Amino acid sequence: QTAIMNNEQYPSLPLKEKQINIISIKAIEDIGHDLQDSILLKSLAPEENTKCQQGLYFQDGKRRVDYVLTYHIKKTSSSRRHTSRLRDNAFTRTLRRGREPPPPAPKDDAEVGSPHHSMDHHDDDKCLRREEFESNLMEMGLELERDEETKTPGMGFVKIHAPWSILCREAEFMKLKMPTKKVMFHSTGVMEKINVFISKLTDPLHPNLEENRTQKVKHLSYPFSREKQHLFDLSDKDSFFDSKTRSSLVFEVLKRTKCTKAKFSMGITSLLGSGVYLAAYPLHDVSIHHYTLLYEEWASYSVFYKYQPIGLIRKYFGEKIGLYFAWLGVYTQMLIPASLVGVIVFLYGCVTVDDDIPSMEICDQRKNITMCPLCDRVCSYWNLSIACGTARASHLFDNPATVFFSIFMALWAAFFMEHWKRRQMRLNYEWDLTGFEDEEDHPRAEYEFRVMQKSLKKDHKSQKVTLHIFASLAILQIGVTFAIVFGVILYRISTKAALAMSSNPMTRSNVRLTVKTTAAIINLVTDLVLLIFDVYFFHICVMVVSSEVPKTDKSFEERLIFKTFILKFVNAFTPIIYIAFFRGRLGGRPGSYLYVFESYRMEECAHGGCLMELCIQLSITMLGKQLIQNNLFEIGVPKLKKLIRYIKSKRGSFQEEEYEKKLQRYETDHFLEPFAGLTPEYMEMIIQFGFVTLFVASFPLAPLFALLNNIIEIRLDAKKFVAELRRPDAARGKDIGIWYNILRGVAKVAVIVNAFVISFTSDFIPRLVYQYMYSPDGSMHGFVNHTLSYFNVSHFQNGTAPLEPFHLGFHVDICRYKDYREPPWSLTPYEISKEFWAVLAARLAFVIVFQNVVMLMSDVVDWIIPDIPKDISLQIYKEKILMMDLFMKEEQGKTRIEDSYKETSTLTHAVGSKIKPLPSYLKLIS
Amino acid sequence: QTAIMNNEQYPSLPLKEKQINIISIKAIEDIGHDLQDSILLKSLAPEENTKCQQGLYFQDGKRRVDYVLTYHIKKTSSSRRHTSRLRDNAFTRTLRRGREPPPPAPKDDAEVGSPHHSMDHHDDDKCLRREEFESNLMEMGLELERDEETKTPGMGFVKIHAPWSILCREAEFMKLKMPTKKVMFHSTGVMEKINVFISKLTDPLHPNLEENRTQKVKHLSYPFSREKQHLFDLSDKDSFFDSKTRSSLVFEVLKRTKCTKAKFSMGITSLLGSGVYLAAYPLHDVSIHHYTLLYEEWASYSVFYKYQPIGLIRKYFGEKIGLYFAWLGVYTQMLIPASLVGVIVFLYGCVTVDDDIPSMEICDQRKNITMCPLCDRVCSYWNLSIACGTARASHLFDNPATVFFSIFMALWAAFFMEHWKRRQMRLNYEWDLTGFEDEEDHPRAEYEFRVMQKSLKKDHKSQKVTLHIFASLAILQIGVTFAIVFGVILYRISTKAALAMSSNPMTRSNVRLTVKTTAAIINLVTDLVLLIFDVYFFHICVMVVSSEVPKTDKSFEERLIFKTFILKFVNAFTPIIYIAFFRGRLGGRPGSYLYVFESYRMEECAHGGCLMELCIQLSITMLGKQLIQNNLFEIGVPKLKKLIRYIKSKRGSFQEEEYEKKLQRYETDHFLEPFAGLTPEYMEMIIQFGFVTLFVASFPLAPLFALLNNIIEIRLDAKKFVAELRRPDAARGKDIGIWYNILRGVAKVAVIVNAFVISFTSDFIPRLVYQYMYSPDGSMHGFVNHTLSYFNVSHFQNGTAPLEPFHLGFHVDICRYKDYREPPWSLTPYEISKEFWAVLAARLAFVIVFQNVVMLMSDVVDWIIPDIPKDISLQIYKEKILMMDLFMKEEQGKTRIEDSYKETSTLTHAVGSKIKPLPSYLKLIS
Repeated sequence: QTAIMNNEQYPSLPLKEKQINIISIKAIEDIGHDLQDSILLKSLAPEENTKCQQGLYFQDGKRRVDYVLTYHIKKTSSSRRHTSRLRDNAFTRTLRRGREPPPPAPKDDAEVGSPHHSMDHHDDDKCLRREEFESNLMEMGLELERDEETKTPGMGFVKIHAPWSILCREAEFMKLKMPTKKVMFHSTGVMEKINVFISKLTDPLHPNLEENRTQKVKHLSYPFSREKQHLFDLSDKDSFFDSKTRSSLVFEVLKRTKCTKAKFSMGITSLLGSGVYLAAYPLHDVSIHHYTLLYEEWASYSVFYKYQPIGLIRKYFGEKIGLYFAWLGVYTQMLIPASLVGVIVFLYGCVTVDDDIPSMEICDQRKNITMCPLCDRVCSYWNLSIACGTARASHLFDNPATVFFSIFMALWAAFFMEHWKRRQMRLNYEWDLTGFEDEEDHPRAEYEFRVMQKSLKKDHKSQKVTLHIFASLAILQIGVTFAIVFGVILYRISTKAALAMSSNPMTRSNVRLTVKTTAAIINLVTDLVLLIFDVYFFHICVMVVSSEVPKTDKSFEERLIFKTFILKFVNAFTPIIYIAFFRGRLGGRPGSYLYVFESYRMEECAHGGCLMELCIQLSITMLGKQLIQNNLFEIGVPKLKKLIRYIKSKRGSFQEEEYEKKLQRYETDHFLEPFAGLTPEYMEMIIQFGFVTLFVASFPLAPLFALLNNIIEIRLDAKKFVAELRRPDAARGKDIGIWYNILRGVAKVAVIVNAFVISFTSDFIPRLVYQYMYSPDGSMHGFVNHTLSYFNVSHFQNGTAPLEPFHLGFHVDICRYKDYREPPWSLTPYEISKEFWAVLAARLAFVIVFQNVVMLMSDVVDWIIPDIPKDISLQIYKEKILMMDLFMKEEQGKTRIEDSYKETSTLTHAVGSKIKPLPSYLKLIS
Repeated sequence: QTAIMNNEQYPSLPLKEKQINIISIKAIEDIGHDLQDSILLKSLAPEENTKCQQGLYFQDGKRRVDYVLTYHIKKTSSSRRHTSRLRDNAFTRTLRRGREPPPPAPKDDAEVGSPHHSMDHHDDDKCLRREEFESNLMEMGLELERDEETKTPGMGFVKIHAPWSILCREAEFMKLKMPTKKVMFHSTGVMEKINVFISKLTDPLHPNLEENRTQKVKHLSYPFSREKQHLFDLSDKDSFFDSKTRSSLVFEVLKRTKCTKAKFSMGITSLLGSGVYLAAYPLHDVSIHHYTLLYEEWASYSVFYKYQPIGLIRKYFGEKIGLYFAWLGVYTQMLIPASLVGVIVFLYGCVTVDDDIPSMEICDQRKNITMCPLCDRVCSYWNLSIACGTARASHLFDNPATVFFSIFMALWAAFFMEHWKRRQMRLNYEWDLTGFEDEEDHPRAEYEFRVMQKSLKKDHKSQKVTLHIFASLAILQIGVTFAIVFGVILYRISTKAALAMSSNPMTRSNVRLTVKTTAAIINLVTDLVLLIFDVYFFHICVMVVSSEVPKTDKSFEERLIFKTFILKFVNAFTPIIYIAFFRGRLGGRPGSYLYVFESYRMEECAHGGCLMELCIQLSITMLGKQLIQNNLFEIGVPKLKKLIRYIKSKRGSFQEEEYEKKLQRYETDHFLEPFAGLTPEYMEMIIQFGFVTLFVASFPLAPLFALLNNIIEIRLDAKKFVAELRRPDAARGKDIGIWYNILRGVAKVAVIVNAFVISFTSDFIPRLVYQYMYSPDGSMHGFVNHTLSYFNVSHFQNGTAPLEPFHLGFHVDICRYKDYREPPWSLTPYEISKEFWAVLAARLAFVIVFQNVVMLMSDVVDWIIPDIPKDISLQIYKEKILMMDLFMKEEQGKTRIEDSYKETSTLTHAVGSKIKPLPSYLKLIS
């Protein structure tokens, strides 16, 4: 039932004959690969013939499927027939000559089920392109097998296998570092023994892997080269390149192979973009022990307390994804001390709440301070002791310990970044990426772009237009986001004002409740709208980008990420920044409250300060958005999509369970969600990092919440990658790219924001100023009195005096309000007082000192901790020396026989083993 | 007269015989270098026999001297004899067997002149080490020639020549990128044409080089490998590796070659450290046109307006020195716009000085403001119009344009850094350094260190002690620097106070003059003391480092540089920072002036503000220190040292001129100053960069001064490198290392310092505050009055009233002083006023805004400008593609013959030229 394209073409010869052939070529070509090529050939000898299960191998059960391309078959099959009609065309003729046509018998079978459509030029074109591309692939040495008669009607699969020699060639071109036979023993010093002891202690925390225990020996690695094949251990060629490496090597070929019929000259990406192929993916290697291990030791909630098997992840998914999970692991690990300290700070607040003099004074019923009405007319006088509860609650988050904590967290961020850099370096070493240059992707798209520009001058204009559209869309998006956020704020202000102004007493009494409910609802709706808007816009971005510049230039991708990040960041933090810094700031004073647009008052915080509201907002966002919404999206949406795809393709003809069982591996994988890049994963985590660092001064429990979220997140992502996504192309990468810079940026912003939160949102600075400048006895007694200004009730302007002046039950002459203003009896009543300016200066001075000291400390941390761990730099050097020795020995070997052997050996013996017997290479030449 | 050590040992065989030899080895070894090695051999064929001049070649006139080692001969020759007496020793015997003893005849001649000393074990040891090292070098394939009978008695020279095969081997080990035969043509688009036009316009600014015009073609480069020799153009083997490359390859061997007799196991550096050899240097290649060009087009004051021939410099001195001069060039070039804008800002100040209302008010004789005495008792009342001159002068540097200028300079610094990064990248590309990893030096010393630790456990303690000494010395140095600076300040304060307090009227009247004179003298003395101290300490540092850890670890070196930099920086800027931020700040008020240690008053600035004094100090430092002192040191000291060395070695027996003429090249070079690294050069420039950016707000002419200095500096350094220093070892380097980080650090600090200078030292903020908060009509009229507080003369405390109250000729009731304090008639007289706090808050707010806005703008500049220029990234990619094509073609070539040739060719023709004829490599294998 399957069209095997290869076997007819290259009937398998007996092994010997082939070998002779090659040697004769070598003799002519005189390049000298005799020995190596005979090794190469052995790889094709048949081994276990039974491994045909689940579609992981070709029909012959020998050749492994390294990559799969899929396409729509219905139109394809019809256009195929069209092609055969077009055989008089010169181009197709020569193409056909290049490879034999597939046996027609199974083809006809395949077309029985599908009705004949009228020929469509577009589809025909696609088919031609596919044929050209596939013949080019075969010319590049890949072996293909077509399967159009699967359980999935309408889908065609092309399975690709890369033979040993192609793998070798590509590995050499990619300068892939592979382990050599030469091993290096780790030093067995005191440090090493301590390490062994520690790893024994923490054994239950490590995943159950055999490899973990046998890491005493490291194979030196060297860029693979067929000329240096003797360096490598090629005894088991099937496992020398693991499945990840094989598929990435094939992907390299796919990217490079040209298809002149396609709009863009290069590679599979443009073919995917123009719909010639539906998808291209490597297969999940479910047959191996490796996959099971990943399932059991990684993608399971029961191992949540363990380290991740990063080596295993990298081996299966490639370096970039390995780095993501390593980063996530490091981040989660670093959150443990942060949340511990955070909890301690919070507990300190709880313990000292009864010793806090200002809140004691507020709660003191005897003091009985009469406060001025908080709004004109409708509000009345109130007693300060009402604010007792919020004042006590505020103390939990607003005490000197939070200042310490925000400094701690700024340094924590610096340490985290340094720690990650070191971990990254260690992983780079362990994964043999030292010396690998990352800029590979960078200029390709640009080049493509240039080529495109030249060859498609007419397309230039339309593309320019689309870029303009893109730019204007981006601006629109930012504009709309801001508009929505500020619109919501304005709406809230106006609702409140309208309600307050209303003369209906029923409405008036319900002011608070109504406002709060509507605010909550609006909040939720806004969040959802923004979220949907965001997702929608991101898709537009991606569409624009992928249709116009098919291969994302690295810098362009970075710009896209950066833009998206800015949008998300603004989305996430605008409401919080509003609460922290603007709410209740410009309220005016009793008797002349400030109005926006004549009738809308600015919102006011409760007496306890805006810090409490900030905390509530933060905990809602952290718990709600992060823990529930994101995870819901991540679990729910992929499952939904999978279901939809099932229903679409199945059309209700099979029982789902049974159906799935009968599917070949490449079909199962086709139904999985395609891998969409790591951007959303990183984005989510970095927004979280923002929550953890940005407002940590006002919410010390943020790291704890983040930690809890991440413990789930890791396993969730793991499950997704192992079971719900198609296997991603293994990409090499030395670092996490732009995300590191964004992290640094967030950490920098965090320092400034925390400085402002401490000095402007919290009462920390006014307290200090009172204590050291105004307090008569150096204690905090009288602080509350000091922060309250006096207001003479007779100074209420027309229409602003409260409607119910006897609300408290007595006549009020002087009321108090929270501000630093001159008393009514001064020369300049109600003017801003000297204390205000003094406190402001102190606040600003604190911001400067805090920002610069913390930044300096971060820089010092950055500078003191070396980026490359000592032991790694030592080992890298050791490796270099060992490789050097090896090569020097080789050099020596070349000339040894010529040398007077005996003399050398006696010399060696006499001098001792320290002088290496390196007979001068030149003795025979000069 | 010269002992040629090589010829006896390896009598030159006829070419054919050798070739046969090698091929027979190959046949046995079966590695496949047949073709290549026959090419290798050709290099040894004799060419022009006449090039023996000036000691640039061996005695045979054929082999070029690539490196020279020197040592003391007197003791050496005697110990040589000693060695021959020790021949029964087993060790020396085997050594001797390794290489034939040099012919004794010339030896005896050499020893005639030198008297026999008693044998010294130490010297003997040195000689043994030398012998072992040299025999090891010969085993590594180098060719040596000894010359002990020179014009310089007491000195022995070992000339080293690396034959072609050794050069090839080392180049391969170092992965040196060399130009291949394959060329790439630069694109000829519109941009290219514009570039050509621009370069034609700027032609007079470019140095006169032929190469400059023929840069249309670039040879692709590829890491040199003997297996890929067919890629390279080896037609002229003498010029394939230029003299710089040859010497650096030899230096690699010297570093690597072990000498077990030496204390430290590895390389020439430890031998130099322990005095076995005196010096090791490559020769100045005076015979070539290159050197002359450098002399004429670079190291000459007459070409001061031209670009430097960076390519030429790099070719002669190596990448690191090339990068230094490129950096210096970029910096100087960038100073041109900065100094232009600076001059404009200064001129703006000059033009607007007559429109400045505050200084007009001060100069207005009619206002006649009576000022309070500036000190207790001895000073008297004075008229404000006295300060007219300084007020007008201050305006030159203290106007809104300086605020703009300091923002401009912060951005300028960001641009400069970005521009440099791009230039560096471009140079990296042009110099074929892409892909080269810089970390080479890093772990070597550490490794060495470990080895040392293991082998020399007993030395461990002493070394630890020395490190302790080093650490404590560093702390001492910082402490002493601070002590001196603050001591000087205290001394100045106390002198002034003592003089002021003195009852002698003569002394009293001379107070100002005396103080100023002594201050200037003290300043000069301090500067000199600190300078000497600095130099002296740096030498101690270097001594400690070089004696203990002979091969400077890169990170250790960086730490040393950083420490030295901090010291120099503190040295240079402490007095300036004192003037800018502390002088006259804590003066107290009339009637209760502040005293330190009961009797020492704090220094006061003149009425015009401290800005004027800051300007004077800055211009003195810039002009004096930079322009004269540094250049004097750089010109004078090396010349002096050279003279001393001449006198020492010559002992007055020759006429200097004649003597010099008769010297061989390696002797001349020996008398040159050894190259001490680029650290002092960079250090000087970065301190200058500090002056240019740090206080630019107060001295807009700084960039101009720096520019003038640098124009001289470049040519001065050039002369030094070309004529006065031994030729440095050519070191590869991709970047300027830690200096870039220090530059970034200075730029960061500059932002903060400028923010403080503008807000605290200048009157910018008080003026703004007055204009927008207090001015009745929004103009500056009344500003002077507003900044002056009132003092009631009757409030003078006991003994603080002026001795001559009628100094001005009339009785004074109320006098004024510059401060924001409450008037005598307020409730709290002489307390700090509300205005003070308001101005302070404004100042602090300005600092925050300025710092963050400028930092953000710098980051945006950093982010927007890509680090790699577009055209370079495109070309790198193009190169990659071309190399890939080349290799694919090679692959194809290997299998082409086997393929059915005709079919392929028809296919190619039919499909067109776009599909490359790549017959599947695998057809024959599978």
